[in-house]
Amino acid sequence: MTTLGRSSSGLEEVVATSSALCFLDGARGTLAYCGYDIHDLVRGGATFEEVAYLLWHGRLPTRAELGDLESELVAARALPDGTSRLLRALPSGDAMDLLRTATSALAHYETDGTDRSPRAQYRRAVRLTSQIASVVAAIGRLAAGGGLIDPDPVIGHAANFLYMLTGDKPDATTARALDVALVLHADHELNASTFAARVASATLTDLHSAVVAAIGTLKGPLHGGANADVMRLLMEIGEQADPSRVTAVIEAKLARKEKIPGFGHRVYRTGDPRATHLREMSRAVGQRTGDLRWFEMSELIETTVRAARPSLYPNVDFYSASTYYGLGIPLELFTPVFAVSRVSGWTAHVLEQWSDNRLIRPRAEYTGAEVPRPYVPLAGR
Amino acid sequence: MTTLGRSSSGLEEVVATSSALCFLDGARGTLAYCGYDIHDLVRGGATFEEVAYLLWHGRLPTRAELGDLESELVAARALPDGTSRLLRALPSGDAMDLLRTATSALAHYETDGTDRSPRAQYRRAVRLTSQIASVVAAIGRLAAGGGLIDPDPVIGHAANFLYMLTGDKPDATTARALDVALVLHADHELNASTFAARVASATLTDLHSAVVAAIGTLKGPLHGGANADVMRLLMEIGEQADPSRVTAVIEAKLARKEKIPGFGHRVYRTGDPRATHLREMSRAVGQRTGDLRWFEMSELIETTVRAARPSLYPNVDFYSASTYYGLGIPLELFTPVFAVSRVSGWTAHVLEQWSDNRLIRPRAEYTGAEVPRPYVPLAGR
Repeated sequence: MTTLGRSSSGLEEVVATSSALCFLDGARGTLAYCGYDIHDLVRGGATFEEVAYLLWHGRLPTRAELGDLESELVAARALPDGTSRLLRALPSGDAMDLLRTATSALAHYETDGTDRSPRAQYRRAVRLTSQIASVVAAIGRLAAGGGLIDPDPVIGHAANFLYMLTGDKPDATTARALDVALVLHADHELNASTFAARVASATLTDLHSAVVAAIGTLKGPLHGGANADVMRLLMEIGEQADPSRVTAVIEAKLARKEKIPGFGHRVYRTGDPRATHLREMSRAVGQRTGDLRWFEMSELIETTVRAARPSLYPNVDFYSASTYYGLGIPLELFTPVFAVSRVSGWTAHVLEQWSDNRLIRPRAEYTGAEVPRPYVPLAGR
Repeated sequence: MTTLGRSSSGLEEVVATSSALCFLDGARGTLAYCGYDIHDLVRGGATFEEVAYLLWHGRLPTRAELGDLESELVAARALPDGTSRLLRALPSGDAMDLLRTATSALAHYETDGTDRSPRAQYRRAVRLTSQIASVVAAIGRLAAGGGLIDPDPVIGHAANFLYMLTGDKPDATTARALDVALVLHADHELNASTFAARVASATLTDLHSAVVAAIGTLKGPLHGGANADVMRLLMEIGEQADPSRVTAVIEAKLARKEKIPGFGHRVYRTGDPRATHLREMSRAVGQRTGDLRWFEMSELIETTVRAARPSLYPNVDFYSASTYYGLGIPLELFTPVFAVSRVSGWTAHVLEQWSDNRLIRPRAEYTGAEVPRPYVPLAGR
């Protein structure tokens, strides 16, 4: 028998690799990308494009470098015809399923072929980051029965996504709200989808395979699926009960030990620093649209949960929900929008994995039947 | 700062979870599925269908249970029209890319919808195991410019795969050679693709997402891609050099410290028990086709490697290559054929994960820039 130790269920607090990308201090509620505290990035006005550059290069871009990246993103934004055709041909269904299939299909139209040089892999990371936004917008358009909208080459990544999704050019407040959400979702150390991407990429598979693995992982309700669950909760309360009864509804759920979506986090123990900014964005978007109902309901839920469970804080998903809804993003696209941002972190982690690769292959503690179990042929069973 | 320990690079020998599926003793070279030593399963004549049942249920099937499973596999074998159309519409390319995209697309035609009951998940596992064989055969047919072949409902899974791929009904020796290969590839504890499937599924994503993550992971040359590399080596020696010079070619590679594909394994230290049976199958297939060249070349390579590096043993990939080639499976399908078998293990691991789920979310040791790094706005960079 092998003499492996007991398993740490879920690899909780197990260090699986080293990484220079994301600093995450759960006890203090600190999150930093390549050293930059996310509070400084958001308050300093860093865009999603700057943050993606930061994750890929380890430093913030100069104006010229940012211009080059923006041009590369613009150049990649129009989807290959085959991918648009595929999205039209597939039956309507779960948007994360469609995103997974379409992203997998993008590999068939790869302009860098099988070139595995760091330059080619970087170009792929940029292209995938650009294309995934276009795929998600296309999924939204087709689900709503609309035609696809060509990208606008002169507006930023967040603004262009909203334009390709809704057909309306967003104003500055609206575009910045999504931009901030994308900045805050860009990376989060070894979250499950990023870890899946690193496990895949450590076999030296291709970048598309690793990102597709991450998309399928993000889909789960214990991960990216949670932001849609928050909106379902808001809608349930908003539509089926008197919003003034929010407190009673939440207290009843807590009394029944139901999980409140958007609260708590495996790593953060004193609060999720991303929630601070998303709370502000939710309010700003509500003020802009003149509908503060979802923001106010969210705040009341937060107050109610915190009063009953002082150690339970809103996480990144909680105020994302009302923010996205206010931006006109349909519920079905909430988790895909998470991917629109996180693809920057996924690809940065894969490039980092490849810079010093080792196969990720843990062991399992065997708990099955005694070995050898006497074999009885079919005729004797 | 958090006080996490140093990382174990690649999670080597780290216990990530417990599992009753696969017993793997690297020191003694033992591999058992649910307690049954693989030597007993192969010598006892267990089919791939029996082994898949074993992995899903934890015990071998009775004759009636096996009959039911065979019927379920037969019922699922014809691909949804949308999937066949998709395969025809995609540009020809890497077969693992095609398999990943087509498997992802199968989710869009899921007959159990979003039912997450254990019965529905089991039905999906059976269907995916059946369908992936049909997808791989279809990829092979289309790559060769042929039409798709309808499945034959009265022959076994291995025989039917060869029929759908080649158009010829295989004889018993030929069918059993592939069947043994499928039995030996069905599961292998927390290999990288299976681990990726468990990481994905632990977010409570769907079965297709988990299997797609696994396919993308298997594609890597450090994992499933290795069997094709073995065949490329055999072809390189067989075509570009005098086969009698095999020894000199291999010794030169070893002297240059080149990795010989198909040798060595992260876990096995005294030999890979699967190689024993695949060596026999390679010989049997060679005798059947009257072309023992690939088998003999493989044996000579093994002898040469073992003489120079006594601790380096052939692994599961080494004799798979000459076996598959003798069965008429084209090089491009070697890794997809690995998936035809391993999907049984992937799905068994996912079902096991869901029976006692916990999110798999390790930590990274931060090695990046000091936090906080002073933020300089774009205008000042």
